Amino acid sequence: MVKALINRLALALIVVAGPNTATAAPPTQPARVARTWTIEDILTIPQVEQIALSRDGRSAAYLVRVTRSQDDGPVFELHVLDLQSRRDVILARSDWMEHLEAMPAGPGWSVLADFGAGVQLYRVSGNTPPSTLVFNPRPVLVGNVDGGEFGVTFTRPLRFGVAFYSWSPDGRRLFYSTLEASSAPPAIVANEPIARASLHHRTGPPVSVHFFMKQQQVAPVPVMTVSDHDRVARWLGAMPVWRADAIEYARQIDTRSDPTVQRFAWDFATRQSTPLPAAAGLARPAVIGPHGGTLAIDRLDNVLRLREHQPDGRVYDYGASEDTLSDPRSPGSWRASDGAFSLTAVRIPREARYALLKIDEAGHRQLIDARGSLRNCAFDSALHRGICIHEALDRPPQLASVDARSARVTDLHAVSARYETIAPLRITPRTWTNAYGFVSAGFVIYPRGYQPTKRYPAIIVTHGSDADQRFGAPSFQWNYPVQVLAERGYVVVLLNDPFTAQSPTIEMAATTENSCDGKTSPAEVRQLLWLNTVESMRSAIAQLDRDGIIDPARVGVAGYSFGSQIVNVAVTQTHLFRAASSGDGGFLEPSVYLAAACSYNAIYGGAPGDPAAAGAYQAFAPSYRASYTHTPVLQQLAEPLAIPTTDFYRALRAHGVPAEMTLYPGESEASDETHIFHIPANRRAAMQENLEWFDFWLRGIEPSSGPDGQRRQRWDALRDEARRDEAEPMSP
Amino acid sequence: MVKALINRLALALIVVAGPNTATAAPPTQPARVARTWTIEDILTIPQVEQIALSRDGRSAAYLVRVTRSQDDGPVFELHVLDLQSRRDVILARSDWMEHLEAMPAGPGWSVLADFGAGVQLYRVSGNTPPSTLVFNPRPVLVGNVDGGEFGVTFTRPLRFGVAFYSWSPDGRRLFYSTLEASSAPPAIVANEPIARASLHHRTGPPVSVHFFMKQQQVAPVPVMTVSDHDRVARWLGAMPVWRADAIEYARQIDTRSDPTVQRFAWDFATRQSTPLPAAAGLARPAVIGPHGGTLAIDRLDNVLRLREHQPDGRVYDYGASEDTLSDPRSPGSWRASDGAFSLTAVRIPREARYALLKIDEAGHRQLIDARGSLRNCAFDSALHRGICIHEALDRPPQLASVDARSARVTDLHAVSARYETIAPLRITPRTWTNAYGFVSAGFVIYPRGYQPTKRYPAIIVTHGSDADQRFGAPSFQWNYPVQVLAERGYVVVLLNDPFTAQSPTIEMAATTENSCDGKTSPAEVRQLLWLNTVESMRSAIAQLDRDGIIDPARVGVAGYSFGSQIVNVAVTQTHLFRAASSGDGGFLEPSVYLAAACSYNAIYGGAPGDPAAAGAYQAFAPSYRASYTHTPVLQQLAEPLAIPTTDFYRALRAHGVPAEMTLYPGESEASDETHIFHIPANRRAAMQENLEWFDFWLRGIEPSSGPDGQRRQRWDALRDEARRDEAEPMSP
Repeated sequence: MVKALINRLALALIVVAGPNTATAAPPTQPARVARTWTIEDILTIPQVEQIALSRDGRSAAYLVRVTRSQDDGPVFELHVLDLQSRRDVILARSDWMEHLEAMPAGPGWSVLADFGAGVQLYRVSGNTPPSTLVFNPRPVLVGNVDGGEFGVTFTRPLRFGVAFYSWSPDGRRLFYSTLEASSAPPAIVANEPIARASLHHRTGPPVSVHFFMKQQQVAPVPVMTVSDHDRVARWLGAMPVWRADAIEYARQIDTRSDPTVQRFAWDFATRQSTPLPAAAGLARPAVIGPHGGTLAIDRLDNVLRLREHQPDGRVYDYGASEDTLSDPRSPGSWRASDGAFSLTAVRIPREARYALLKIDEAGHRQLIDARGSLRNCAFDSALHRGICIHEALDRPPQLASVDARSARVTDLHAVSARYETIAPLRITPRTWTNAYGFVSAGFVIYPRGYQPTKRYPAIIVTHGSDADQRFGAPSFQWNYPVQVLAERGYVVVLLNDPFTAQSPTIEMAATTENSCDGKTSPAEVRQLLWLNTVESMRSAIAQLDRDGIIDPARVGVAGYSFGSQIVNVAVTQTHLFRAASSGDGGFLEPSVYLAAACSYNAIYGGAPGDPAAAGAYQAFAPSYRASYTHTPVLQQLAEPLAIPTTDFYRALRAHGVPAEMTLYPGESEASDETHIFHIPANRRAAMQENLEWFDFWLRGIEPSSGPDGQRRQRWDALRDEARRDEAEPMSP
Repeated sequence: MVKALINRLALALIVVAGPNTATAAPPTQPARVARTWTIEDILTIPQVEQIALSRDGRSAAYLVRVTRSQDDGPVFELHVLDLQSRRDVILARSDWMEHLEAMPAGPGWSVLADFGAGVQLYRVSGNTPPSTLVFNPRPVLVGNVDGGEFGVTFTRPLRFGVAFYSWSPDGRRLFYSTLEASSAPPAIVANEPIARASLHHRTGPPVSVHFFMKQQQVAPVPVMTVSDHDRVARWLGAMPVWRADAIEYARQIDTRSDPTVQRFAWDFATRQSTPLPAAAGLARPAVIGPHGGTLAIDRLDNVLRLREHQPDGRVYDYGASEDTLSDPRSPGSWRASDGAFSLTAVRIPREARYALLKIDEAGHRQLIDARGSLRNCAFDSALHRGICIHEALDRPPQLASVDARSARVTDLHAVSARYETIAPLRITPRTWTNAYGFVSAGFVIYPRGYQPTKRYPAIIVTHGSDADQRFGAPSFQWNYPVQVLAERGYVVVLLNDPFTAQSPTIEMAATTENSCDGKTSPAEVRQLLWLNTVESMRSAIAQLDRDGIIDPARVGVAGYSFGSQIVNVAVTQTHLFRAASSGDGGFLEPSVYLAAACSYNAIYGGAPGDPAAAGAYQAFAPSYRASYTHTPVLQQLAEPLAIPTTDFYRALRAHGVPAEMTLYPGESEASDETHIFHIPANRRAAMQENLEWFDFWLRGIEPSSGPDGQRRQRWDALRDEARRDEAEPMSP
């Protein structure tokens, strides 16, 4: 979630493909074994957002984000699975549901949901209608919409009354936040706050976040009110940690993408906040070890070690480890009430998958895992049993039972039967070591019916570290129909950045880019954080070429957001790619220095006008490098902050490089699509556009006429112009 | 109007003054001779927008744009003056009125007005309520507002049903346009149209302009429907010209600031349009000479000559002239029905004033003028008599009668008695010849109670060619309280760009800047169109210094829109100025290349990333030149397209230069202030801010605490920082 936040604040750009694809599966395809992937399949992959265990251990509730092809947006379903009978029922549906927990007392579940009155806190159970636990009568409009607070829900605009809640461990207290939109007339504004008005397309009122503590029968007590500019408070509920006497929380104290927080404690008795003695640090969740101390990955003598830090200063060392503890994509940290062991949800970067790490009191480590990933787990308080999502790139999600003592994993229930009928594609995990000596993890998806004697066109897809063992995660593959590309005869490579943990220099560069601390030079920042991934692409292409799998003259590259930054750099620094698709980005373009001055100073060494930085901009800014490339670039946009996209588009066109940019609209003139598309018709059309784009440039297949009837004419004209330029002698 | 359009499309930036000023005049000040100017006086100067003569010649109707201090916006009044009795009555008031004409038959006046149902075409007379002539039941929201079409009304958002109309000379036909907002869901958009989405802060639906011809009792016939992207069609009614058999009109055929039009003729009988044989040209009104041909100013052998072109090719030469014919600020061209002479409204650039030029059949020229300007005239069809606005910088507007035969001008009626009671300031017209040899016209306003033995601080105010003999025109002085600055002891210089007509090289540079035709080099474009005005400032300062009038160490500079471009260049290319205020601009900043690529190519020689242009950007782009200057810069903003403003602000601050930017808000979160402010409270506060800014830096007078209570602290801190920097040795 934090990483998503970090990515959200980096502006980035993006693009869909061909008429010959079986893009529209018949809505009711007879269930038969071994059918093939369609775009509709990708569009409707369910996302299990969260799991909660009942206190009696008999059932597991889970939230699924569902998209049906003919809907105009996602819907959230609250399911309950009886762990004995494996019977699954849907308790509720809503345009928004999150933060699912078992009620601290009695049956039922607490959840934030919109049941017609904006998002509020409800109790949902099988026997009764939802009942209101916390209700804010003036919910705030949130979304990419006129009059709304800019949101990261990736849905249509919604009203939010309650933004966050957390039960105390003993269930007697409830900590929660509500939103309030200011109705005051707008004031005259001076200086830096004006810049904020340019960061988003839509304008809304100032929004405050009110935090309260409620103790059983007592009226709620205000804890604090903050501006929604504090993103940690607004979106992470101020990251509360319950103590016996107080609640600890975090306040954002800077404006960086990966923000720094100062922690405080609000005393239940005195109702006063005091800052905690610990120094301000990044916004990271608390992870607990078997002795009740804090688990962390520490670098000592250039080796990463898993260690537990006690409050009295004692440290336990559990050995070398490069894993990520409680990664936002699979958060979780538990300690058995009898202290026998701790469980931590981990991400294994070198294998690009998720598992559970068990550490016992004696310090023995054991990985509890399954083929692919175990993720988003929920455990009972005694840590006997948990329920996780078990999935892999080639394995649709199941709810699985995990026995923490025996480490046994048992699949219980398929989340969607539809995907069980698709013949799995052949997907191989791989790592590549690039010319800088750094390792990237990823996967190779073989085309359906792969023949080793043939060489295939290939598409490389990238988005940070999101290529991992999750089934069709939109946060990785976005509008790139990875599975259908494989069905259509492409090798598809899912490639991660070289993972940060492997090297202190990459870690330091990332810190410099976020904080502009100047400890890593701009040239190294560019090399370690962008060129590094491009070099991994070069290594992957070389390996697949050496092994006779791909045709190196027909390789495309695609990525959205941070991935689009990599794509834009890849096509303006190498001639590896025959076509590119770049999604909803723009970061690295000089025209958006406004939005990220600190990071740009770290990347380029100064502002675009600073002579000291001029060479760096000339060498690296994609639109400044347009004369170098020949690679056709498609850019697909959601929020129409079109300046950097247009700068790159026009620079490419000015140098005769084929280029197209496409803006996907919101529900109306008053709203925009979201960074990860929420309108199925848009996502479908964008995937189609990407298929057609790569089919056109890599395989010479004519596109459809597109949504405006002009696509084929435009692309044919781009191709004809490029052929004419190739025929001419190079100008000096 | 066209010039206003031209300026509108050039992004530009702007800034109010001190607690010691008598800023708020008592609302009802007893009328006494020789009182002094207040900010409230400036705020409430009436603007006579248009005059129309009744067909019987007995009355003149006129539209006045009125602002009362306590209102939240301007109001339009329709007055009728009985030319015999001089009795003036108000027939109607509305949030919007324009295009006033005498009814072609019968009494009364036709006018576009909003009487509660959006702007429609009405007939207004003294005896009856307004009656509807053309009514569009679905008016379109226009203004800087969510869901509205971007407007140039400089009012709050309004709904427009009818946008334009014109009666045929015989009164039997009516040509008019209505607006329609599309209600279709937004579509997927490709390429260049996406860039348009970034040009404005607010988003609205696509708008169509429907043109109709109505002939007396016949139902209206559709002539054409165009997108509002055709600005000539949208805002200038397609510039119709009536012929006996057809109506000629103009369509915009490019996207330049000063657009090119192709003319067509719509035949009344066939109802078909055909292109006219004349080549496409700039959007200029037709000006008619005594022989019925087209009057123009032609350059021959480097001399500008006034000539009349006949359709048969014959040309009449009326001698040298550098005047502008039918300038948008005083349009008008008439020919006596007996052909004895023609009358043309002219602007005399060297004198910066308006008059009438009479040319008789024998080719004799006569200037009909008065002290100051005669402007916005209306003449009867026989050209015996006309009514004009008679005004000057030091003379509040009167309606005046003009006898075309005798050339006699008679003042009839003061538009606002309030201004007759203010003691005129001493204002001297002047020209300056700069180091390039070019002439700028302007005015010197002496401080109240000027003593020749003293030297005074000075403020130079500029905005294109708008410093002329008009009384307090907001389109020139914007939020710079010129008259109150003079009351407070400043010399105020109103300075124009060196006027274009004096030199073919300036003309060519302006053409190149608009069309990127490459005929003038970028260096010359910068020199002739921006540095030229700065050099005139240098000459003006030198002259006033030589004459012992000003203290050259205490000179400020101010300008909005195009004027802000000059200000930003002036402070980053010279050390002439002790403080600057720059209003609502941003053009010339590299980050807005998106919006004006053609012009930027002409100015800089390429895009910001083009190595061929890098030197030009380094040498000229204000934010790239921030390290050169020490001049404190205030920027005042309406529409929060804050990127270029913020770029300049941050660049200044990064180099320790004092800077402030202030954003003035719209009516609510959903709307913005307009380029020329329409909210009196904003204009008052902005004028106050400018007074305080210049008082602070030029005279060391502490400011008020400002609207947010923090102004004094902020400005004191800026000053203290600047003093510390001055005390340090210069870094190499």
